[in-house]
Amino acid sequence: MKVDGKSYRTIWLNEDGWSVEIIDQTKLPHRFETVTLRNVEDAATAIRDMLVRGAPLIGATAAYGVALAMREDPFDDALDRAYETLHATRPTAINLKWALDGMRATLRNRPHGERVALAYRRAAEICEEDVAINASIGDHGLALIRAAAARKTDGAPVNVLTHCNAGWLATVDWGTATAPIYKAHGQGIPVHVWVDETRPRNQGAALTAFELGHHGVPHTVIPDNTGGHLMQHGMVDLCITGTDRTTATGDVCNKIGTYLKALAAHDNDVPFYVALPSPTIDFTVADGVKEIPIEQRAGDEVAKMTGKTEDGRIETVSIVADGSPVANYAFDVTPARLVTGLITERGVVEPNREAIARTFPERVED
Amino acid sequence: MKVDGKSYRTIWLNEDGWSVEIIDQTKLPHRFETVTLRNVEDAATAIRDMLVRGAPLIGATAAYGVALAMREDPFDDALDRAYETLHATRPTAINLKWALDGMRATLRNRPHGERVALAYRRAAEICEEDVAINASIGDHGLALIRAAAARKTDGAPVNVLTHCNAGWLATVDWGTATAPIYKAHGQGIPVHVWVDETRPRNQGAALTAFELGHHGVPHTVIPDNTGGHLMQHGMVDLCITGTDRTTATGDVCNKIGTYLKALAAHDNDVPFYVALPSPTIDFTVADGVKEIPIEQRAGDEVAKMTGKTEDGRIETVSIVADGSPVANYAFDVTPARLVTGLITERGVVEPNREAIARTFPERVED
Repeated sequence: MKVDGKSYRTIWLNEDGWSVEIIDQTKLPHRFETVTLRNVEDAATAIRDMLVRGAPLIGATAAYGVALAMREDPFDDALDRAYETLHATRPTAINLKWALDGMRATLRNRPHGERVALAYRRAAEICEEDVAINASIGDHGLALIRAAAARKTDGAPVNVLTHCNAGWLATVDWGTATAPIYKAHGQGIPVHVWVDETRPRNQGAALTAFELGHHGVPHTVIPDNTGGHLMQHGMVDLCITGTDRTTATGDVCNKIGTYLKALAAHDNDVPFYVALPSPTIDFTVADGVKEIPIEQRAGDEVAKMTGKTEDGRIETVSIVADGSPVANYAFDVTPARLVTGLITERGVVEPNREAIARTFPERVED
Repeated sequence: MKVDGKSYRTIWLNEDGWSVEIIDQTKLPHRFETVTLRNVEDAATAIRDMLVRGAPLIGATAAYGVALAMREDPFDDALDRAYETLHATRPTAINLKWALDGMRATLRNRPHGERVALAYRRAAEICEEDVAINASIGDHGLALIRAAAARKTDGAPVNVLTHCNAGWLATVDWGTATAPIYKAHGQGIPVHVWVDETRPRNQGAALTAFELGHHGVPHTVIPDNTGGHLMQHGMVDLCITGTDRTTATGDVCNKIGTYLKALAAHDNDVPFYVALPSPTIDFTVADGVKEIPIEQRAGDEVAKMTGKTEDGRIETVSIVADGSPVANYAFDVTPARLVTGLITERGVVEPNREAIARTFPERVED
């Protein structure tokens, strides 16, 4: 997608053919800066300090981290050390482990002299696979937006509401929830996005707004409180969010507040879609509300806010009354009954056990 | 209620017997400062610049503004000028006009020599009436909290969720939504309040948290996105919010985001109450969603955030991606079907036309 008129992915190989470039997402939206990764430590730091974020992008960065390690030392000890170093950065990230396991399986028992080339090739494949999955999600979601556009008689834009950032910045390209939007925009279908601010970390106001703005997609940032009012007044045609984990039965765990938007959508007959690459489906969980533990994060994410002053400095300010305790639950679970459909790389799937199993039969024995 | 261990109202007569003291609410929560009003211009500025806020407190300040004007000049011209000056500060505030009309009716056709004393007496009555109404709302709501406490077998606190600030800072004392909470706390019933941050103006994180914290009521500030998750997990016993305007049929217009909490309460069988002084009921409106126009406010309230830096300075920072448009709808309407009851000064009333008319028969011909 575009930034300042130039096309980017979130991670790419530099012209030297070996060093890896990423966008420093901790600086967004106020500064757009890229950072060069030259060794496995650089890659580990980028993941640990959240210069890169989003499961697919973390996996891709780890894969390139192994390639950078092999370039310095292609022997098994170095491979194991790279695995451990990278895995320790965010040990609960499923995609990180998946990417590292894949890299190790590819390199183990292969001649040392071939490992560097093999590692770069596999890392590139991981990136291309992510792009292909998201492009496919985009195509399936595009059909929904096109259908909504066809119901408009006046050429008015299709209004899509999204929550948090399930955009290209969280993947290698396209994003998940944003892929249908970028596809529609690319085909000239008029689309306008209501961007939930997404307190407390403001990923909507900061990242989704940045993405859409730079790519030229019309959008408006709104407080998280606003979506219900918009839906009551016919100002939202469909909702599309991402998900961190969806159960075998179609319950959707996503950024805190998603459930409230799904309730409002249901109350106003607005379709509520969730875009996801199928690895996000967890076939071991049946009841999302009961079974998925919800992480609590630091209270300072709620109590403090970082932004840009009038004269361009980045400052952090406290916004809560002194001494008041704060709670920060990171996710919530939207029951499948409130979800219209799951937009996957294999099509739009009804959020129930039968339809999900039918679409991904090879995963059911997991 | 208490601030730093001392009991306060939001407006009071100083010991000199004529000047009026208010809390400068624009400085909260970071600074607690009071301001002395010595003439009608001081009162007008306090209302216009929102040093005082909340319908009842605006009315009380205007009433004292007229008293201050009479002290300088008790003739009819001065009375009319004071009326106009004060009314122009926030011309859409219903309570402001009501208080000014009351003051003028009290003073007109009375001997000039009596007007100062009459004006101060009527202003004091307006304050006392507000305190009495809120205390009564508190008593009726207290019964609901006491009943919830009785259902707890382990002495655990009753968890109340509230949105925005319908607290004592918006009234002369007690508040509306907070009155039952302060009453329960005062009687030793263990109560804990989930305080919605209330984006974009953060009245929850700033004002409600300040109030509850200083009065010693246990509470936790949460992002507006959080309430649904808490209700899914049995962590909210009841919701109590205020309202800016409630229809003859029980539809509730209140701060944007209230509707989303009411939906979550309904989905999880959590009682959802609205506390209101009966003048807030608008008997001319039947369908709140269709008929009540929703004010849009400046986008900067969403895009910028003011708070306190680590070293104690007050700074304003931009938090939205540069160039992204912002929308700021101030209120939404919660349909009566999602409201459990209206806590009024005459008791808890079912949110429907018949019950409301039965409780306030003298208002129905309005």
